[in-house]
Amino acid sequence: MAGTVYAQTNAEELSATIIALEKAALEKWNQGDPGGYLDLSADDVTYFDPAIEQRMEGLENLRNYYKPATGKISVDRYEMVNPNVTAVNSMAVLTFNLFSYVGNDVHKWNCTEVYRLERGGQWKIVHTHWSIVQPDVK
Amino acid sequence: MAGTVYAQTNAEELSATIIALEKAALEKWNQGDPGGYLDLSADDVTYFDPAIEQRMEGLENLRNYYKPATGKISVDRYEMVNPNVTAVNSMAVLTFNLFSYVGNDVHKWNCTEVYRLERGGQWKIVHTHWSIVQPDVK
Repeated sequence: MAGTVYAQTNAEELSATIIALEKAALEKWNQGDPGGYLDLSADDVTYFDPAIEQRMEGLENLRNYYKPATGKISVDRYEMVNPNVTAVNSMAVLTFNLFSYVGNDVHKWNCTEVYRLERGGQWKIVHTHWSIVQPDVK
Repeated sequence: MAGTVYAQTNAEELSATIIALEKAALEKWNQGDPGGYLDLSADDVTYFDPAIEQRMEGLENLRNYYKPATGKISVDRYEMVNPNVTAVNSMAVLTFNLFSYVGNDVHKWNCTEVYRLERGGQWKIVHTHWSIVQPDVK
């Protein structure tokens, strides 16, 4: 029973840790700074978003891809809707819906972030998948 | 050095195992049978696709969601483009681009599948994210 409580506490702590990492990066992004996500991503990160033809590979490519966005993004406020973390010892998948408010518009996103615990004890993103919620598609 | 070779072989074997699981489920799906994906998904699976408003939770909801698609899907052929597996001991993230050919049309998808090694030694999907490649969006 003590073991169960301990495991549960660890899971809650891990969820809180991962969500805090993501929010810190996202809040920088919303002010035009991709640096939070770049610092948080592993060298072997893979990346999907709707605007690219095929999966992107590696931190250097992501750095070059994000460069033109620097200073161009300004999100007034956001809601991270219903974040969920499913984890094993050294890997955790964070998923959430994101509502980004820009003026009178709201942009709705699906987001998947896979984090891996690196040797130095730091959690890093090894995979990112952003997509647009578009229920009229089908 | 022997350790390195051993680890590399394990990684290659794991990649092959995960990709084979995914292809088997996908090939059933392409013939109108969602059962491959349902059998492969864990009870606590979470799920995104473009047509749903918010993340779906749990195998029973996924089963109900897929039910109307049964027998309705017919994909002539597919290409799993550039599959990649990033893994730790008991979790693996498979990503690929999918080209699905239906008559003269090709549907292009981004796919993320997070697999977890369950107690019985079976790999199960704990998270799925399908999205549409749409480079004209930005």
